[in-house]
Amino acid sequence: MGKALLVVMDGLGDRGKETPLAKAATPNLDKIAPGSSMGLMFTLNPGKLPGSDTAHLSIFGYDPEKYYKGRGPFEALGAGVDLKHGDVSFRANLCTIDDKMVILDRRAGRADYGMDKIYATLDNMKIEDITIRAIHTVEHRGAVVFSGPGLSAGVSNTDPHEVNEPVSQAKASAPDGEKIARIMNAFTKKAYDLLKDHPANKERIAKGLKPANMAVLRGAGLFEQVPSVTDRFGIKAICVAGGALYKGVAKFVGMDVVNVPGATGTGTTDLNSKAKTVLDAADKYDLVFCHIKGTDSAGHDGNFDAKKKMIERTDAEFFSKVIGKFETIVITGDHSTPVDAKRHTADPAPILFWNANCRPDGRTKFTELNCAGGSVGQLTGTQLMHLILDYIGKEHMFGE
Amino acid sequence: MGKALLVVMDGLGDRGKETPLAKAATPNLDKIAPGSSMGLMFTLNPGKLPGSDTAHLSIFGYDPEKYYKGRGPFEALGAGVDLKHGDVSFRANLCTIDDKMVILDRRAGRADYGMDKIYATLDNMKIEDITIRAIHTVEHRGAVVFSGPGLSAGVSNTDPHEVNEPVSQAKASAPDGEKIARIMNAFTKKAYDLLKDHPANKERIAKGLKPANMAVLRGAGLFEQVPSVTDRFGIKAICVAGGALYKGVAKFVGMDVVNVPGATGTGTTDLNSKAKTVLDAADKYDLVFCHIKGTDSAGHDGNFDAKKKMIERTDAEFFSKVIGKFETIVITGDHSTPVDAKRHTADPAPILFWNANCRPDGRTKFTELNCAGGSVGQLTGTQLMHLILDYIGKEHMFGE
Repeated sequence: MGKALLVVMDGLGDRGKETPLAKAATPNLDKIAPGSSMGLMFTLNPGKLPGSDTAHLSIFGYDPEKYYKGRGPFEALGAGVDLKHGDVSFRANLCTIDDKMVILDRRAGRADYGMDKIYATLDNMKIEDITIRAIHTVEHRGAVVFSGPGLSAGVSNTDPHEVNEPVSQAKASAPDGEKIARIMNAFTKKAYDLLKDHPANKERIAKGLKPANMAVLRGAGLFEQVPSVTDRFGIKAICVAGGALYKGVAKFVGMDVVNVPGATGTGTTDLNSKAKTVLDAADKYDLVFCHIKGTDSAGHDGNFDAKKKMIERTDAEFFSKVIGKFETIVITGDHSTPVDAKRHTADPAPILFWNANCRPDGRTKFTELNCAGGSVGQLTGTQLMHLILDYIGKEHMFGE
Repeated sequence: MGKALLVVMDGLGDRGKETPLAKAATPNLDKIAPGSSMGLMFTLNPGKLPGSDTAHLSIFGYDPEKYYKGRGPFEALGAGVDLKHGDVSFRANLCTIDDKMVILDRRAGRADYGMDKIYATLDNMKIEDITIRAIHTVEHRGAVVFSGPGLSAGVSNTDPHEVNEPVSQAKASAPDGEKIARIMNAFTKKAYDLLKDHPANKERIAKGLKPANMAVLRGAGLFEQVPSVTDRFGIKAICVAGGALYKGVAKFVGMDVVNVPGATGTGTTDLNSKAKTVLDAADKYDLVFCHIKGTDSAGHDGNFDAKKKMIERTDAEFFSKVIGKFETIVITGDHSTPVDAKRHTADPAPILFWNANCRPDGRTKFTELNCAGGSVGQLTGTQLMHLILDYIGKEHMFGE
């Protein structure tokens, strides 16, 4: 039996009396619910609205107030880029601009035809003493990493976040941001020259697609090596996820990251494959972390049925296989994404701890309302890892 | 009527649906349960695993992150030693070594015959400008205190914590630890010379007991005078306990400590005597703290029945007499010691506040599960003292 399985169903929490979780048919979860301890988790603090990156840092036991340096590094790590201390990473969009550098479509119509070749053209560029890596991820998106001396994340974006606006000039937002701003603006000029007549763009135009003739950057983040979960908590942990961000945060904290066949980070992800990957890892790791994205996407879309069905499919295809295979199972969300709000909210995530020897609340179903007043009480995200460590006998006593 | 009584049943919390507390017949507690407010107390923070020393510091309102400097000073204070600012205290074991200083038995067979005389031989030793005190407590255990200029607790133990290992050389673990390491190693040599042919050891051998021919030291702790509960909270408090550690922590925070006839810090302690001592103190103090150890020992032994019986005996012999004699009664544990885990766990301690004018939950029995979602909510250890102060009208308003 594996030691501990932590399942994060992204944005699981909802509002209302009859939430997707409460209404979903979950026969497998229902089997363990009465013997489980339930509670509420405020991933950051009550009232504090978590992003996906800060939420996962917290859940892994890393206080984002201390460890969060922007999203860029997580995207880059998740895309498989190796980062060195001092590298600055960005999230990149390939977009469509006119000849005055005004953005006509921030996503170049989302069609990813030829975008891998365009990112490859931008890759391994050198400006002054800085090396630039550019990696395509999905659709128009990619990661861009600057490596070299004297970089800082104290800089504004070149992505204006609006159409009909010109590509923004990068400006230093901190005293040490002058150099990176200069490199970013040089990168914009080079990208313009390299992409305006790029063969892939000629092909895109021939196919009736918008040209992907500019790369705009946002979310500069400085990579600083942090002590791993192994260093800090004495555990080996693995991440089973489809989405690049979650893999990136996991890699950042020193988890092993496995590529899961068919895991897409979307509502159509292959949950059977995820269950198989989780079970394969069970005996080799103290903690298996599994991320399921579809619940959050359905919440953002305001689609009650899709969220409910994602929960039902997870119960049928995933929980049916992994329940009984771990000494401790923890199921929660990283935050709430209520279908009525269509955004993250600060409502606490419901959380369920199952262990043959916990404090069972006897509540027959895992729901937001049953979690309120449960025997776990309420906790914050950074406390979760310590509870898991305590269950698996790896938490160090403070004092004697 | 006394103002407030705080009863800590050590390691009270347990796991499972039918815990020792839930199954124990407690007619006296049952009388006050429906009129009480219940809640969950995380002595440190959710997930953080408390030792006995840090737990009690917290419960007395002293954040261990700030005030905890190692266990040694509490053992010494509990053994009745007066400490001065700058003294360094250790926990000591008399053990059995061979002529190569290899430890054969870390506890010299636990038989305490003659051990008081052996500790007395080590007492009042002088090495360089340091005076050493050595005091026998129970079985093979004692407290050793170094007094003099330039001491630090930045030093390793001479106790290797293993048999078939030689007595460890003390080594500085901080830049200012060189002097104390030197004194500790000189102490080991002197102890060897003084104890190898000690008359008490000749008698022990004649009786078929192992000689107690070495004193090994662990848990160096620097004593720093802290503001007392009277200074900080404006109350007079008294500690009624058998175990030396609890008396030591109480003394550290400026409580009066009374010796209770028949209180042993074990499962066979005289609870009638403890109740009498508590009642004698009721009118003279704002807060009477009473510690009951047997629940924790039964948890460590994995003995469900012993834990349940200790709770039942406490109800019959102690609560029967003290209920009704205090305006406010608070009953809790310092942490959980579930019988299946046989160790401290991070599960919250159940807590009950009784006062004629609290917010009664109406729950008919004081149990871990009834405490979840109770009207006290959940609190951390350092908040408890302020709740008690508020009940007795001694908490200062912040603002107006």
